[in-house]
Amino acid sequence: LENLPFGVFVRPGHRPRIGVAIGDHVLAMGVVAELGLLPPHVPPKVFRRETLNEYLGLGPDTWESVRSRLTELLTIGNQELVPHEGSALIPSNRVDMVLPVEVGDFVDFYSSRYHAENVGRILRPNEASLPPAWLHLPIGYHGRAGTVVVGGTPIRRPRGQRGADDVGPTRKLDFELEVGFLTGPGNRLGEPIPITEAQKHVFGLVLVNDWSARDLQAFESRPLGPFLGKSFATSISPWVVPLEALRPFRFTPPVGDPAPAAYMRDPSPWSLDLELEVLLRRDGTDTRVCRSNYRYMQWTITQQLAHVTSNGAIARPGDLFASGTVSGPGEAEMGSLLESTFDGSRPLPLDDGSSLSYLEDGDEVVMRGWAAKGDARLGFGEVSGRILPAHG
Amino acid sequence: LENLPFGVFVRPGHRPRIGVAIGDHVLAMGVVAELGLLPPHVPPKVFRRETLNEYLGLGPDTWESVRSRLTELLTIGNQELVPHEGSALIPSNRVDMVLPVEVGDFVDFYSSRYHAENVGRILRPNEASLPPAWLHLPIGYHGRAGTVVVGGTPIRRPRGQRGADDVGPTRKLDFELEVGFLTGPGNRLGEPIPITEAQKHVFGLVLVNDWSARDLQAFESRPLGPFLGKSFATSISPWVVPLEALRPFRFTPPVGDPAPAAYMRDPSPWSLDLELEVLLRRDGTDTRVCRSNYRYMQWTITQQLAHVTSNGAIARPGDLFASGTVSGPGEAEMGSLLESTFDGSRPLPLDDGSSLSYLEDGDEVVMRGWAAKGDARLGFGEVSGRILPAHG
Repeated sequence: LENLPFGVFVRPGHRPRIGVAIGDHVLAMGVVAELGLLPPHVPPKVFRRETLNEYLGLGPDTWESVRSRLTELLTIGNQELVPHEGSALIPSNRVDMVLPVEVGDFVDFYSSRYHAENVGRILRPNEASLPPAWLHLPIGYHGRAGTVVVGGTPIRRPRGQRGADDVGPTRKLDFELEVGFLTGPGNRLGEPIPITEAQKHVFGLVLVNDWSARDLQAFESRPLGPFLGKSFATSISPWVVPLEALRPFRFTPPVGDPAPAAYMRDPSPWSLDLELEVLLRRDGTDTRVCRSNYRYMQWTITQQLAHVTSNGAIARPGDLFASGTVSGPGEAEMGSLLESTFDGSRPLPLDDGSSLSYLEDGDEVVMRGWAAKGDARLGFGEVSGRILPAHG
Repeated sequence: LENLPFGVFVRPGHRPRIGVAIGDHVLAMGVVAELGLLPPHVPPKVFRRETLNEYLGLGPDTWESVRSRLTELLTIGNQELVPHEGSALIPSNRVDMVLPVEVGDFVDFYSSRYHAENVGRILRPNEASLPPAWLHLPIGYHGRAGTVVVGGTPIRRPRGQRGADDVGPTRKLDFELEVGFLTGPGNRLGEPIPITEAQKHVFGLVLVNDWSARDLQAFESRPLGPFLGKSFATSISPWVVPLEALRPFRFTPPVGDPAPAAYMRDPSPWSLDLELEVLLRRDGTDTRVCRSNYRYMQWTITQQLAHVTSNGAIARPGDLFASGTVSGPGEAEMGSLLESTFDGSRPLPLDDGSSLSYLEDGDEVVMRGWAAKGDARLGFGEVSGRILPAHG
């Protein structure tokens, strides 16, 4: 009841509908709206849509009033929903989840210093491990929004140029453990979002698996950055956890050194303590291959959003901003195989007796997240994907 | 009548509508469709939309039948439209043009060898001027789709990090002369578009000004490529010229050396002979600062689309693929100020007596294109933008 994550579900033969997860049921928000059970200023039509975008565009006051009202409706003793439970509450095992938003733009940051330094050491051993601008701004790039898929979608091993005159299925298929946020109302072109306002534009968070083909990526990415090595697929968890639900798990992060530029100095900075893990499922056996925490990110959500709009670029309802690989300082905390296997050269042992360098056909990657503090615990859902063999 | 470009127009107090330019009038396609004057298999509803996306999704057979029918309707002697001219044909000077598509994903290539070598020599003088993969694949990256604007939109000078501890309005605001194509139906995730099919997915072309802030770009772009140095705005021409209209201006380009990988070998390769120019308008005086031609691009449209989907990534109706700066071999053929002023160090003389290193507030950049062959001539419209001073 503290979570109330939003998603979009489908029942066979029906069109996609907006839902809120509650225990092992999904609350059909369209039904709740039609029944007149939501606050009167919330336009019911936003819950007739097949994505969350229009709802995200309504902004934090509306999100908060809907959240309060749902809490009321779902509290034991409240009778308002009881006569309608048959139509409003659907068992989760009878629905499939689809992509919750139409992603407008997809930005992928690079905000774990541990990850950036690991990657620098492995891929550019003759340069400084941290890129020149890394300490001054949250480095990022745009990914392909059209290939963001919902968790559970099988991932076809991509083909591509692994080097000069070497075309074929990638030999270095990898995952990246990330956390993303989805924006709400957004700004007008040419008018940056001040860092003090940034939080109002963030609806909620998802888990992100930024699938990567390291050989394609290495060959293509100078000087314009990753392209086809990333663009074949990015998976996000089906349930969007509202930022509001994560409030108990906030903490005050250390100020960066050097101090960030004025436009990224948050007078009330916060980050989130989110536990994360990656399981590799092979032949029915799960092996945990990473355990990390979102708190390791050096650049915060408000800094990222203030930075990305600082040049006047807009954020829109449904834009996705991913953190970059959430790697920590420990050997077991590396959020990609590039790091944890040192580019495939130091395979990880799996619990079924085999070993893992890069992903093999049939492997399934399952990422999970949760927050815990004292008695409070909040599940963050999971994002999974199984590797299909390359075509042809 | 050979052109019949598509766009979206607005009259004061009305909602945006799809139109086709014909002389100094705009043909309101929604009206033509409602009158039942289009082929019966073309769903009229696609012309009630406020963008071209749904029409683009219908594919080349539909585009061709609509084009044939419009040619018929607009030929002198045809009487079918005559009774409806008042509602169907609107003087161009009574409408404003808006963005013709909702851009799904925006890819920017780097396909002029002259441009890539110029930039390499200027920005990376100690490295090979051509990046390692350049001859093997069309290098590109994703830009910010949400900040693609229609030509005529004023461009606010962006602020940003010009270097370490140096935040302020860009001092190196530049244009890039480009040509883009908009895709139609597209493919399914995981299923590349073969190069022999690529042409069927291309609806038409626009002019593109890929505005760039060179100081921001230089500081931020290692290792993930351009980000805020580009994302503040990209302008496209309001009228989309159908690929079909450009057929007379095709030519067979030379095969690359080394020969492209099999998936980019087009059995019937073609490129386009499109004349391009850039005018700099300052204090009412126009100076031509670049004259180039799209034929200089080494990677073709079909190669670009085959490449970008070769890893299984999808193209969707309304995705924008820009060529990269169209620079030629001559000094007057450089499509950006980075090149033609050697990063601002060799200012260009302007016809008003002043000089141009990078863009100044108040400067207007006007890009124009046309095709000409024998008696055939086809205007490609223009894309313009005037620089507003930075905020704050």
